[in-house]
Amino acid sequence: MDFDLVVKNGVIVTASEVLPPGLEIGIKSGKISCIGHSLPTTPTTQNLDCEGAYITPGGIDSHVHLAQIPTADGWETGSRSAIAGGTTTILAFAPQSRSDTSLWPVLEDYHSKATAQSYTDYGFHFILANPTAEILRDELPLMASQEGITSTKLYLTYDALKLNDKEVLDVLMTCRSLGMTTMIHAENHDMISLIIRGLEERGHTEPYYHAIARPRVAEDEAAYRAISLAELVDAPILIVHMSSEVAMGHVRDAQTRLLPVHAETCPQYLFLLSDALKPGAHDHFSGAKHVCSPPLRHRVEDLDALWRGIANGTFTVCSSDHAPSKYDHPEGKKVGLVDGVPRFSKIPNGLPGIETRMALLFGQTEACRGVAEARLSLPRFVQLTAGNAARLYGLEGRKGSITPGYDADLVVWYPGNKGRTVIQQTNLHHDIDYTPFEGIEVGNWPRWTIVRGKVVWDRDNGGIVGEKGYGQFLKRQKGKVVTGRTGGLPRGMMQEERGLWMDYKPY
Amino acid sequence: MDFDLVVKNGVIVTASEVLPPGLEIGIKSGKISCIGHSLPTTPTTQNLDCEGAYITPGGIDSHVHLAQIPTADGWETGSRSAIAGGTTTILAFAPQSRSDTSLWPVLEDYHSKATAQSYTDYGFHFILANPTAEILRDELPLMASQEGITSTKLYLTYDALKLNDKEVLDVLMTCRSLGMTTMIHAENHDMISLIIRGLEERGHTEPYYHAIARPRVAEDEAAYRAISLAELVDAPILIVHMSSEVAMGHVRDAQTRLLPVHAETCPQYLFLLSDALKPGAHDHFSGAKHVCSPPLRHRVEDLDALWRGIANGTFTVCSSDHAPSKYDHPEGKKVGLVDGVPRFSKIPNGLPGIETRMALLFGQTEACRGVAEARLSLPRFVQLTAGNAARLYGLEGRKGSITPGYDADLVVWYPGNKGRTVIQQTNLHHDIDYTPFEGIEVGNWPRWTIVRGKVVWDRDNGGIVGEKGYGQFLKRQKGKVVTGRTGGLPRGMMQEERGLWMDYKPY
Amino acid sequence: MDFDLVVKNGVIVTASEVLPPGLEIGIKSGKISCIGHSLPTTPTTQNLDCEGAYITPGGIDSHVHLAQIPTADGWETGSRSAIAGGTTTILAFAPQSRSDTSLWPVLEDYHSKATAQSYTDYGFHFILANPTAEILRDELPLMASQEGITSTKLYLTYDALKLNDKEVLDVLMTCRSLGMTTMIHAENHDMISLIIRGLEERGHTEPYYHAIARPRVAEDEAAYRAISLAELVDAPILIVHMSSEVAMGHVRDAQTRLLPVHAETCPQYLFLLSDALKPGAHDHFSGAKHVCSPPLRHRVEDLDALWRGIANGTFTVCSSDHAPSKYDHPEGKKVGLVDGVPRFSKIPNGLPGIETRMALLFGQTEACRGVAEARLSLPRFVQLTAGNAARLYGLEGRKGSITPGYDADLVVWYPGNKGRTVIQQTNLHHDIDYTPFEGIEVGNWPRWTIVRGKVVWDRDNGGIVGEKGYGQFLKRQKGKVVTGRTGGLPRGMMQEERGLWMDYKPY
Amino acid sequence: MDFDLVVKNGVIVTASEVLPPGLEIGIKSGKISCIGHSLPTTPTTQNLDCEGAYITPGGIDSHVHLAQIPTADGWETGSRSAIAGGTTTILAFAPQSRSDTSLWPVLEDYHSKATAQSYTDYGFHFILANPTAEILRDELPLMASQEGITSTKLYLTYDALKLNDKEVLDVLMTCRSLGMTTMIHAENHDMISLIIRGLEERGHTEPYYHAIARPRVAEDEAAYRAISLAELVDAPILIVHMSSEVAMGHVRDAQTRLLPVHAETCPQYLFLLSDALKPGAHDHFSGAKHVCSPPLRHRVEDLDALWRGIANGTFTVCSSDHAPSKYDHPEGKKVGLVDGVPRFSKIPNGLPGIETRMALLFGQTEACRGVAEARLSLPRFVQLTAGNAARLYGLEGRKGSITPGYDADLVVWYPGNKGRTVIQQTNLHHDIDYTPFEGIEVGNWPRWTIVRGKVVWDRDNGGIVGEKGYGQFLKRQKGKVVTGRTGGLPRGMMQEERGLWMDYKPY
Repeated sequence: MDFDLVVKNGVIVTASEVLPPGLEIGIKSGKISCIGHSLPTTPTTQNLDCEGAYITPGGIDSHVHLAQIPTADGWETGSRSAIAGGTTTILAFAPQSRSDTSLWPVLEDYHSKATAQSYTDYGFHFILANPTAEILRDELPLMASQEGITSTKLYLTYDALKLNDKEVLDVLMTCRSLGMTTMIHAENHDMISLIIRGLEERGHTEPYYHAIARPRVAEDEAAYRAISLAELVDAPILIVHMSSEVAMGHVRDAQTRLLPVHAETCPQYLFLLSDALKPGAHDHFSGAKHVCSPPLRHRVEDLDALWRGIANGTFTVCSSDHAPSKYDHPEGKKVGLVDGVPRFSKIPNGLPGIETRMALLFGQTEACRGVAEARLSLPRFVQLTAGNAARLYGLEGRKGSITPGYDADLVVWYPGNKGRTVIQQTNLHHDIDYTPFEGIEVGNWPRWTIVRGKVVWDRDNGGIVGEKGYGQFLKRQKGKVVTGRTGGLPRGMMQEERGLWMDYKPY
Repeated sequence: MDFDLVVKNGVIVTASEVLPPGLEIGIKSGKISCIGHSLPTTPTTQNLDCEGAYITPGGIDSHVHLAQIPTADGWETGSRSAIAGGTTTILAFAPQSRSDTSLWPVLEDYHSKATAQSYTDYGFHFILANPTAEILRDELPLMASQEGITSTKLYLTYDALKLNDKEVLDVLMTCRSLGMTTMIHAENHDMISLIIRGLEERGHTEPYYHAIARPRVAEDEAAYRAISLAELVDAPILIVHMSSEVAMGHVRDAQTRLLPVHAETCPQYLFLLSDALKPGAHDHFSGAKHVCSPPLRHRVEDLDALWRGIANGTFTVCSSDHAPSKYDHPEGKKVGLVDGVPRFSKIPNGLPGIETRMALLFGQTEACRGVAEARLSLPRFVQLTAGNAARLYGLEGRKGSITPGYDADLVVWYPGNKGRTVIQQTNLHHDIDYTPFEGIEVGNWPRWTIVRGKVVWDRDNGGIVGEKGYGQFLKRQKGKVVTGRTGGLPRGMMQEERGLWMDYKPY
Repeated sequence: MDFDLVVKNGVIVTASEVLPPGLEIGIKSGKISCIGHSLPTTPTTQNLDCEGAYITPGGIDSHVHLAQIPTADGWETGSRSAIAGGTTTILAFAPQSRSDTSLWPVLEDYHSKATAQSYTDYGFHFILANPTAEILRDELPLMASQEGITSTKLYLTYDALKLNDKEVLDVLMTCRSLGMTTMIHAENHDMISLIIRGLEERGHTEPYYHAIARPRVAEDEAAYRAISLAELVDAPILIVHMSSEVAMGHVRDAQTRLLPVHAETCPQYLFLLSDALKPGAHDHFSGAKHVCSPPLRHRVEDLDALWRGIANGTFTVCSSDHAPSKYDHPEGKKVGLVDGVPRFSKIPNGLPGIETRMALLFGQTEACRGVAEARLSLPRFVQLTAGNAARLYGLEGRKGSITPGYDADLVVWYPGNKGRTVIQQTNLHHDIDYTPFEGIEVGNWPRWTIVRGKVVWDRDNGGIVGEKGYGQFLKRQKGKVVTGRTGGLPRGMMQEERGLWMDYKPY
Repeated sequence: MDFDLVVKNGVIVTASEVLPPGLEIGIKSGKISCIGHSLPTTPTTQNLDCEGAYITPGGIDSHVHLAQIPTADGWETGSRSAIAGGTTTILAFAPQSRSDTSLWPVLEDYHSKATAQSYTDYGFHFILANPTAEILRDELPLMASQEGITSTKLYLTYDALKLNDKEVLDVLMTCRSLGMTTMIHAENHDMISLIIRGLEERGHTEPYYHAIARPRVAEDEAAYRAISLAELVDAPILIVHMSSEVAMGHVRDAQTRLLPVHAETCPQYLFLLSDALKPGAHDHFSGAKHVCSPPLRHRVEDLDALWRGIANGTFTVCSSDHAPSKYDHPEGKKVGLVDGVPRFSKIPNGLPGIETRMALLFGQTEACRGVAEARLSLPRFVQLTAGNAARLYGLEGRKGSITPGYDADLVVWYPGNKGRTVIQQTNLHHDIDYTPFEGIEVGNWPRWTIVRGKVVWDRDNGGIVGEKGYGQFLKRQKGKVVTGRTGGLPRGMMQEERGLWMDYKPY
């Protein structure tokens, strides 16, 4: 019972409780070995004194785009930014193009991009843009069982990525049989295309019209459809980056009925409104910085509704959807400036946010705002930023909880209000030239980030102190349904009915 | 003030009231000229003594398939069957095939099928299977303004007919600008296809599996999608032949929010269950007689829910969806018997029902069951079988109401319980070899049917006494929204937002 | 076939349709005898040329307080005001005090107040404040069968009137067995009392605090309770003067389930907001003019929600709740000015509105605003102002419809926009010194009001031309359920279950 | 770092996770001191080998009636029964009678009943039947701050206990200001009384009619009312022993809106149906054993709905509502046999269940039924049986979690399926002569129960091995809102509005 590191004098937060103060975390060989009072130390034991601050599990950011487009973050800068913000595990996408007929080269490509580059541990989700029979039948089983990739993502919109309902169903049936989770970007493509055609015809092409072109009803419809498809075949899904109250209500209803339906939102939908897309005082095109899909919504009531979903449990995870492009770069956001004329539909979608996610949410807990003003509790913070993602994406037992036997991935916050910070681009560690959260003050910021027992971020002494390449690839297990459970039946269907076709292989 | 015909001694039912007994209807030149007490008569005035019976408007059957497939009813037999059942106006389909690039030949074709053949007045809905820009831009405006065809029908399922969301939106935008109403067959095609593939692979191909292959959730999803598309572009729709309680709930919610969303159901979904699809005692394939889409549902609770929708106003119309095929005919239902092996997916869809619709519904009113046991009121019967269809489909002022100035289209029922009838194939007038309602006893049956002042059905004296070809083609006006109103906004959308693109022409 | 009066050249509106123009209404002996084209006239026939204007049924105002308190309108002034506004039938209250042990003196008292005083026909609802066993067992049956009083009203609030749930149930059971309808004022008394105690303790006693003291949740709770009580015993109710969207949603849900639940709102809840209760520029106490219960609500969204209920059919009737007190009178509204100090809880509740109701609503139809801007349709106007009240309160066959055999109670409006009127106290006919609708412009105003074939209001020629005492007392029949139907079961209850106790006599 | 007891080789379950196997729990001075791998031991350390079994927190039964009526369990037998079933903390009632004008004697009385009698730790809830101003103003603050009683219970039904809405509001306002939680028995008293009167008049007095007399709608109404009252004054409530799906839906809606509304159900509503109230084969009156309120419901669908509420998170706690009476005893259930005639309304309400609760629920987890068939997860089991009650009732930090620093209250189950048990009265430890769960097989049973580090139940070696009087009285802290949060506003209310009266003291 000797330890490499003992983290002392903190207040540990789990997904269900704030533990009594004074407990110590004993770490050995990168894992949490013991939690208790007055742990024994030896001369070689390193000690970290939290000075009464909160300790939360290292963040798991389960929705991250790295190295997919030219001006985005790659693994090095993205994961560096992550640890500076308290995130210790990244699940990033390995995207299939529609022309790819096999996932193996995609996997190889993304391994090559990440290997020896990452500051955080990481795993991959496959984006499926062309789910051929061969991929479903031959490749996905191996990906799940052998390569540790147990989740996929589908799009219901974007010309280059959109799957039709048949393809979605085929993927869902397959993933269900393999114990994989399916993430779905739910917006109705044809509604949006119609409006874009209309707006463009009338010359409404400035960045702000991006928010007009993707109304809530497009998300509401697609979310209902995704849930219905999942209900039919009893397959677990997570609807990514939700922004609409009505769509969120569909999820809540599904969860009430115990369908395996999960939901995700992101800080941008909790903090920002569409006026951010309007022309800046000095830069007419600056709204492009805030172009993401679904778009920022129009009213404070929209934010309030999402915070309600955060607090009442509708949302399973809160990720960053870190999908940035440099702003002032001809291959970045300025792609949307065609011969000097703004064309919102050409602007690369996405915002940076991997570094700010944890602090933005932690700042809304009772730790920073007191019980009466808190928008979420500390245990709910842990669920949303780490615990639920671990469970859903097959990392339970290793990541996402401060528990003996788990990897020692920790965030130590500042005590009291000593961590108060105004978010500024100049202090961030990504390779992007702006942050959409510029100027927002948050009540705390990670003081130390620890990955597998090693301090990799020491804000007051060196900042990034971890090493590139320390991060490991995570072969994930099958995930678990967090909300609802599989085994339910669509309304009006009889048990024997589904049994007649449910084990059909759609390939 | 002289009359060709005076209908006396009846009890007139309108869409809002049962009028006091003793009122007389004076008819002149095919139109209702006067309603009052003790109308003056001349020696040439014909008198019809109703003996205290109820008089309702002649039925408008707004969902009828005639002459579309080889073994169906054509205009002569279909309209003959209609008047024998109290229906005086038919709205039948003029279906475009996907290969048709113009609607003009379709129109000509269906005019040629109907002209000089019909016992009832009639109009056409276009089925759009290929809504090209030319059709939307050049043809539909003329069809509405010049040819009197002010409604279209779209399918979200069937390989040969299915439109995608873009096509639906383009049609809805166009129809809205022309004041046309869009009917939508709402079932999710890919869900159904998946199940059919699964069932067929396992050899579950008997007729009963048709009811398994099209679960309620397929209707629920498609109905929600249709409503969402209509909401986006503020276009009036009617979802045809609804059979699911949840889908009906979506309609009810939409109506609560004043969206211009209408709903239709049919007697088969109110009276019949899926056990009718099971093998008969002497004929293993007899379930094919009951194959229609959506399918008959499984439980009495499903029927109860639909009756609730009848009574609470969710349903706008109750039509027959008369779409029959002969059963014992190699080009009829037996197409689904492939080398003696049943293949439910090959069975022509549809049931006969044009003759039985009015009596099946009238039999559930207080006229036949008393107030306490009635499933709908007499005024609601009039709304569902005549009044609402007239308003929605542009026949207001001519059809669907017993009002001076309107066409004298009337049904006179038997007084008391003298009309009690057991439905039997041998007594029907269609050119089909069965009725799915065989053996059901109804509390009354039309004694006289009057079309534009002329008795065309005299059940006790000659039966069919009208003449083939008496029926006229109806050039219809623009319809009116019956439920909700146009002018609403999708949830979360601002007024100025929709104005930016709403007048865009999608072709 | 000769007529006393022929009303020509108008456009008749029924509860379901706008009839074709040019129809004539032939009236004989106070009743509509005939509707048709070119009715024959004799030299003694009076003719009224509508010049193309709309004709609607005479208004039925089913919620009117007359002669209950010192400074209110009595029958003469109240009914005079009614006909000047197009209302031809009044249902007013005969209120039992809690100390009254018999209804007979109450009935006699109110007959004496009304007899020979009324310009309109009229009936009584009993207010029950002390529903003793004797009254329920011995008196109500005679009141219904012999005296023609087939409805009662109960209060869930006000110290002097409030019934507890047991009393409500006893009344509902009794009324159900007698075919009577029960009106319910639904606000939670104890919630309101708590807030009043709190506000008064803090000195918040100005009129505006009346709107603070009766929050929507008090109405929501009481409405849900009233519906639940009605559901238990399957008795028809109407919740009076509703003002809350959530409570209205409870009614909508009940109607969806076919419970016999009806709802009423009033123009004040459709047009006015709580800022009207704030101190006037010159008169600090003028907000007292707008004190009514439930109170005027705070936001435009509240008005919009109620208009939605008007259009989607949730509301069965729109009455005036004419319950005025003179403002500048020591026994009127100024009772609430105690030694010069405002005390909102002492202000007599209620507003005048019997004369303005019809025009305020008619002004929102397509007749005045066009189809796109209309907040209700003309047929819906007829349902809400006349037709539904007739059916619910047992006047079907006599009142509320322009139909041969019915009393000739009509309102003829001005053609086109010739009736445009700004509401002003100086033009009204009540005996009250203000109108809460001062300054609102309405698109039309009744030109002629006809009661039983006699013109009683001729706006351009004499104004009030009817005679005091012309109005007759109406012995009413049992009412009919307009929304839903009796015979339903509470959720989770079995048929046999209710049968075990349902015929129990609660007295 | 030495331990009195080390619990080894078990699988620890927390409210959010199933921890990795192999962790050891080090216990010192009655508290959990450490959790980790390979804890050091000394010769005096006792070791307990769990053989791979699950370890859950000791059960907290937060709804227990002891010593309230003659033939019930007292503290000794009730708490003995508790530890034999894995419950280590009891929150029992100290009931005020309506005639009690002070709570101090009540407190003294119940302390005297419990002191030196209890096998488990225990606390009190006050039942308030007469919440006088003195009690609210003077006594409750001391009870909370000094005596450690931070919760009360109110009844909306029963003649002897029922509070009216005013009293409920006064209590809620007071409890809110003191940080106390209010439990509410929600059934509509007058509905139930009406039916009882009706049933009795007709001679329907056998035990089964108890289930007829208290229909679901009585619970639905009262639950909605309780929520509305809590919403008005923003006070946390828990609705006890819920049995109706609709009422549960009201709670779910309230939680979605973040109201501080909690819900409780009990095993009897999850496992038993009303047919248990019917006459037994040999004993006509045996249904009396199953008389509790709310009553057992009629259909399997009712059970399914409640299980759904268990799994989807609507229910905050699952308690026993242990409120037994001996069956075969003239002062027990047989009070309802009056001169040999059954009188259901006289039967003492309540069932025994303190010993069977934990096993009945644990048996429905994946531990006993596998993941696919589980009706709740192991973490949810911990939330419902221990964790949430601790938080809500002010025991966080001491009870309800297996965490260093907490009391070492543990249940060790049998490994695998070695604990399979058929529930039989002969094996139970209460002082009651039957169990309503007789014959139900559960998948496991507590092998060891540990209270503050001491084994008090060793099923295979001595059974009850704890000592009477070992249990301590728990002075509780203020509780925390588990579901929703305080600070919300009733719909339609503005922030400043409530501020005007919210700090009013209602006494």
